[in-house]
Amino acid sequence: MESILNALKSKLADEQVTTNQTVRELHSRDETYHETSLPDIVVFPKSTEDVSHIMKVAQEFKTPVTPFGVGSSLEGHVIPYQNGMTVDFSLMNKIIEIKENDLLVTVQPGVTREQLNKELKKYGLFFPVDPGANATLGGMAATNASGTTSVKYGVMRDQVRDMEVVLANGSVIHTGSLAAKSASGYHLNGLFVGSEGTLGCFTELTLQVYGIPEHIVAARATFPTFTQAIDAVTAILNAGIPIARVEFVDEATVIQINKFSETNYPIEPTLFLEFHGNQAGLQADVDFTKEIMKDHDCQEFIFETDTKARNHLWDARHNVAYAYIHGHVGKKMMLTDVAVPISELANAIIYARAELDKLGVPGGLLGHVGDGNFHGLIMIDMTNTEEVQKAKEFNEKVVLYALERGGTCTGEHGVGVGKKQYQQLEHGAALQIMKQIKKALDPNNILNPNKIVDME
Amino acid sequence: MESILNALKSKLADEQVTTNQTVRELHSRDETYHETSLPDIVVFPKSTEDVSHIMKVAQEFKTPVTPFGVGSSLEGHVIPYQNGMTVDFSLMNKIIEIKENDLLVTVQPGVTREQLNKELKKYGLFFPVDPGANATLGGMAATNASGTTSVKYGVMRDQVRDMEVVLANGSVIHTGSLAAKSASGYHLNGLFVGSEGTLGCFTELTLQVYGIPEHIVAARATFPTFTQAIDAVTAILNAGIPIARVEFVDEATVIQINKFSETNYPIEPTLFLEFHGNQAGLQADVDFTKEIMKDHDCQEFIFETDTKARNHLWDARHNVAYAYIHGHVGKKMMLTDVAVPISELANAIIYARAELDKLGVPGGLLGHVGDGNFHGLIMIDMTNTEEVQKAKEFNEKVVLYALERGGTCTGEHGVGVGKKQYQQLEHGAALQIMKQIKKALDPNNILNPNKIVDME
Repeated sequence: MESILNALKSKLADEQVTTNQTVRELHSRDETYHETSLPDIVVFPKSTEDVSHIMKVAQEFKTPVTPFGVGSSLEGHVIPYQNGMTVDFSLMNKIIEIKENDLLVTVQPGVTREQLNKELKKYGLFFPVDPGANATLGGMAATNASGTTSVKYGVMRDQVRDMEVVLANGSVIHTGSLAAKSASGYHLNGLFVGSEGTLGCFTELTLQVYGIPEHIVAARATFPTFTQAIDAVTAILNAGIPIARVEFVDEATVIQINKFSETNYPIEPTLFLEFHGNQAGLQADVDFTKEIMKDHDCQEFIFETDTKARNHLWDARHNVAYAYIHGHVGKKMMLTDVAVPISELANAIIYARAELDKLGVPGGLLGHVGDGNFHGLIMIDMTNTEEVQKAKEFNEKVVLYALERGGTCTGEHGVGVGKKQYQQLEHGAALQIMKQIKKALDPNNILNPNKIVDME
Repeated sequence: MESILNALKSKLADEQVTTNQTVRELHSRDETYHETSLPDIVVFPKSTEDVSHIMKVAQEFKTPVTPFGVGSSLEGHVIPYQNGMTVDFSLMNKIIEIKENDLLVTVQPGVTREQLNKELKKYGLFFPVDPGANATLGGMAATNASGTTSVKYGVMRDQVRDMEVVLANGSVIHTGSLAAKSASGYHLNGLFVGSEGTLGCFTELTLQVYGIPEHIVAARATFPTFTQAIDAVTAILNAGIPIARVEFVDEATVIQINKFSETNYPIEPTLFLEFHGNQAGLQADVDFTKEIMKDHDCQEFIFETDTKARNHLWDARHNVAYAYIHGHVGKKMMLTDVAVPISELANAIIYARAELDKLGVPGGLLGHVGDGNFHGLIMIDMTNTEEVQKAKEFNEKVVLYALERGGTCTGEHGVGVGKKQYQQLEHGAALQIMKQIKKALDPNNILNPNKIVDME
C-alpha cells in the first residue's frame, strides 16, 4: 500500500491522494440496494496527465481502478468490489469550449448535466440527455445514459462526437473527430460510450448540443387502462409526430407524485408528454395528438404552456425516485430497467404490474415509453432476507420476459454488477466477442474489473 | 485450389461456386479509379449456414474472403487485392419481415435500398438512408453509408437495431436486440457497422424505418458565393429548423446537371433543400428559411411542391456522378469525401475549388453540407500518369486540410484502400486499438484483409 501511495504521489499533490475512511465510504456505494465495498485509495486527478500517471501506477501494481463521477449510477458500476483505487473526477469539472456555430461543446468528465445546461442557456443552447439525476457527463457517457428526451434527441451515445480516453496502459487516444459524421475506421466512440469504465477513463468529451426549441408545450393525459395509454403512444410514433418526451406512470406512482410534489393528479394510468417545435407545427402536432388520445379513450388531456406549470409537471415526474425514497425511510430502492419492442410494451407493463402486486412491497411502474423502456421501482427492506430475495426474483422475471421478446435487460441504467448475470442470455455468442475486446484493451483486467463481463 | 473448391462444394450446390472468368471480372472492380484485382473464386451463399460454411472453409485454407453487394462502393472495399474468395450476397435478397408497429424491418444483406423502399411504400413507410447508388443494405451497413437525408434521419449506423454476423471462425452472433435503446454490453452494432467486411459477414439486418412524411417541400436556392450559401446552411441549422436535406453544388456541377438532366438551372453556387413535416409546421419552417436565405443574399429561391417536379429536382442531384461519367467517356471518376466541422466548411470548399482549378481536369464540388461533408468529383484519364498523380495529390490536399481542422478523411464513403494511408494521421494512437480489435476478432487476417488497417 505504502509503495502505491508513494508512486501516486511522485506526480500528484498530497491532497489528491487519500485513504481517509470517510472519503472511502463516500466512494463505496451508489444510490441503490447494491452491496457496498470500500476502495483502498481515492485519487482526485486534475488533468489528463494525472489520469495517465494514475493508470501507469495501477498497471505497475496491478491495482483495480474504478472511475467515479457523482455516484448516481444504479447498477453498482462505481462500487469497487475488488477495492484498489477509485478515481474521482470531481476536480476535472471545466467546460473547456463552447463552439456555438458547430453546436458542439467540449467538457471535462466531471462537469454535471445541470452545470452544462446553465452555461449553454447563455447561448440559447441546451444539452438534451436527461437521466433525472444531476449526473456527470463522464458518467453519463460511461453508462450510455438516456432518459425522458431520448425519443426525440437520442441517447448519450448519439451526442458524443469525440472523447479523449486514457487506456489501461496510460496512453491517451481520441475516439472520434469534430465532424458531424465519419466513415473512417472502427467506431470507437460507440464502443467506449457505455463501456462503464472497463475499457478506459474518459478525460474529455465533445458533445453535440441543440438550440433551445422556439416553442414548448407539455401535457398530461390519463387513460382507463395501461393498454390504452401505450396504444396511444404507439399511434403517436407511427403517425410520425416528433414528440420530445412521452412518459408513462402507473396509479401507484401517481399517488407518490401527489404526496411528494403536492399535485392533485387523478389516480389513473398517466402519460406526461412534451412537444418541441415552431408554434404552427407544434399546434398541428398537438391537435393530431389530441385526436389520437380521444381514439384511445383518453379521460383527461391537460396542457401546460407556461414555463412555470411545465417545470412543475416535469419536476413532479423527475422526483418520482425521491418521492419513493422519501416516502419509505429505511428502505432501499431497486429499479428494473428493461426495454422491449414497442409492440410488446403494453403486455410487458401489465405483466410487471401483476408480478409487482404479488410481491407485497411498495412500488410502481414508470417508463420512457416512446423507447419501449420502463422501470419497476420498488422499495425494499434490506434486513428482510425474504423480501430482498423476492425483489430480485421480480427483477429477474421482468428481465426474462423482455429477453424472450427481443428486448434488452437494461435500456439505460447499464450492466454494472446488477445485470451481469443476464449478459450471456441476452448476447449469446456475442458475449465472447465482448470478452475478447476487453482482453485486448485491458489484458490485466484492472479497469473496473468484473463489471459488464467477468474475466477469468 | 481444387481442394478449396471441393471443401466449398461439400455443402454448397455447384452453381453457388464459380471460377468463371467473366464472373471473376465482375467482382474485380468498383465504380471508381481504383486498380482492379481478380478473386480466385466467387461464391453465392443462400443462407446464414452457407456463409458459416464458407467462413469455416476460408479459415481452414487461410483464404481471404471479400464480401460483395452490388459493387457500388467507392474506395476499393470490394476489390480482392489478395485474391481468394469473393462472397456475393445477391442470392440473399429477401425482405424477411416488416414489423409495422415497431417501425422495424428485417432483411437479408443483398436487399437493395430501392427494393426495400418499394415494399415499404405499401405500408406508408420508408427507409431514409440514401447514398445515391442503389446499393445493398448489407453494403451500406458495411461502409456506414449516408447521403442526402442524414442531416435529419442520421447515418446507416443510426438505423441498425440488430445484425446477424458470421465471424471469421464461422460462428454466428447477433450484435443488438429489437429494443429501441439499450445499455447492455459493448456496442457491437456500432462496431460492426462501418467495419467494411473486416470483422465479419452480415447475414441479416434489422433496421429502423419511418412513416412517409405527411408533407414534403423541395426547394432550390442560388447564391453569389460559396460562403454565402454555406453561411445560410449554418444559420438554418443553428435556428433548429429540422431540414431533411440540404445539398450544395458548385457552378461546374450545375453545368453537368443541366446537360445531363435537361434542366436550365442558373450557373451559380446552389443549394437543393427539402423539408418534411406537417403542413403548418413546414410552412413556418419554409418561411423562416426564406428569411435566412434573404439575409444571405440568396438570388433565387424556387419551390417544388408537386411530386413530379420534386422528383425531377432530386433525380438531377442524384445523377451528378452519372452526369460526369456520361460527359467524360473513357475517364475514371475519383471522389474526395471529407467532412469538417460546419464552421470550417465554407473555407474548406473555397480551398478545394481553388486546388481543383489548378489541376486542369474536369470536376466539381458537391456536398451534404448539413453534415459538413463534401465531395470533389474529378474525371481522370488513367493512362495519363501525370494526371493521375495530380488527382491523388488533390485528394490528399483536401484530406490534410480537413484533418488539420478536426475533420475526417471520409464522411461516408469509408476507408477501403483509398483512405488507408490517412488512418494513422486521423486516429493517432487509436489506430493501434483498432488493430487490436481486428486481431482479436480475425487473428488470421482473412476477412477483407488490409482494408481499413494493414495487419502485419
